[in-house]
Amino acid sequence: MAKGKIDFPVANIRRYLEPGPVILVTSAWRGEQNIMTMGWHTVMEFVPSLVGCMIAGSNHSFNLVRRSGECVINVPTADLTDAVVCIGNCSGRSVDKFKTFGLTAEPALRVKAPLIRECHANFECKLKDDRLVDDYNFFVFEVVKAHVGRRPKHPQTLHYTGDGVFMVSGKIISRRSRFKLEML
Amino acid sequence: MAKGKIDFPVANIRRYLEPGPVILVTSAWRGEQNIMTMGWHTVMEFVPSLVGCMIAGSNHSFNLVRRSGECVINVPTADLTDAVVCIGNCSGRSVDKFKTFGLTAEPALRVKAPLIRECHANFECKLKDDRLVDDYNFFVFEVVKAHVGRRPKHPQTLHYTGDGVFMVSGKIISRRSRFKLEML
Repeated sequence: MAKGKIDFPVANIRRYLEPGPVILVTSAWRGEQNIMTMGWHTVMEFVPSLVGCMIAGSNHSFNLVRRSGECVINVPTADLTDAVVCIGNCSGRSVDKFKTFGLTAEPALRVKAPLIRECHANFECKLKDDRLVDDYNFFVFEVVKAHVGRRPKHPQTLHYTGDGVFMVSGKIISRRSRFKLEML
Repeated sequence: MAKGKIDFPVANIRRYLEPGPVILVTSAWRGEQNIMTMGWHTVMEFVPSLVGCMIAGSNHSFNLVRRSGECVINVPTADLTDAVVCIGNCSGRSVDKFKTFGLTAEPALRVKAPLIRECHANFECKLKDDRLVDDYNFFVFEVVKAHVGRRPKHPQTLHYTGDGVFMVSGKIISRRSRFKLEML
């Protein structure tokens, strides 16, 4: 497993992605690797564990992801805000983002794209469906392996609102007692 | 316009949807209308303004949305938490959700599905692409009209994490000065 992290059930990754955090997507192809900042994604299924992501064709990562058919979704926390912003405002064509932003690439178990050690969670993904890529740049990935930090249970994530402004995740409230068991 | 709301540019709705709030989707078909709670959605494009949404086939709303080819995405705030939970834990087959939960249906301008007056924002949507509906229940909608409350600029939204637990949106931070102009 990734250092300091636990093996997390891929069917339960909604806990980290459904609240809508900005994510860092890593990719690798023929000896090259890159990181991109992304906010347009959605959980699509529990089993298999599916996530849909928008990766615009203008991103350097687009071809690395499409050709390799793989990526890693890394969930950064608010302490990485400045790295998240800078990664989204430069291109892998001219910048080694791991080196420039002091991030550590760790080998993944099921894909060639690297994990970012400093992120709270890392989800290894394989491309499942590319039918909407040509028209919308929409990739459907299957999460095949999930690594998650032991704590905190609810990490402080970043949520983009456009115009350079982020919302930081706030307080946690439970309404568990009001749910039907089958809806939990 | 919807009462107390302003006409908002549809190309800018990321401000409300990209942070990942739980939304209430309203639909109407042949005299029947319904509301469902949904957390699996993503912005897909600015112009045209596209949003992808997962509506499982088991939801009563599925057929209303598919047959009408329309819906309204309503963004509730934390004061509606209990309604959001209850709407997600009962079915429109047996419950009139507007009446039961004290919500007000207002006519939309471009679609037959109603707006929920008590929600901070209402986005009128037309079905744009249903290619992934049969395999994944994934609908691509175009937002054709947006109504947004004048204030606050950043409403307190609910973000689901599974297991009956929500994250409430937290503080707002700007990194605008670190963005390239074309990335804003």
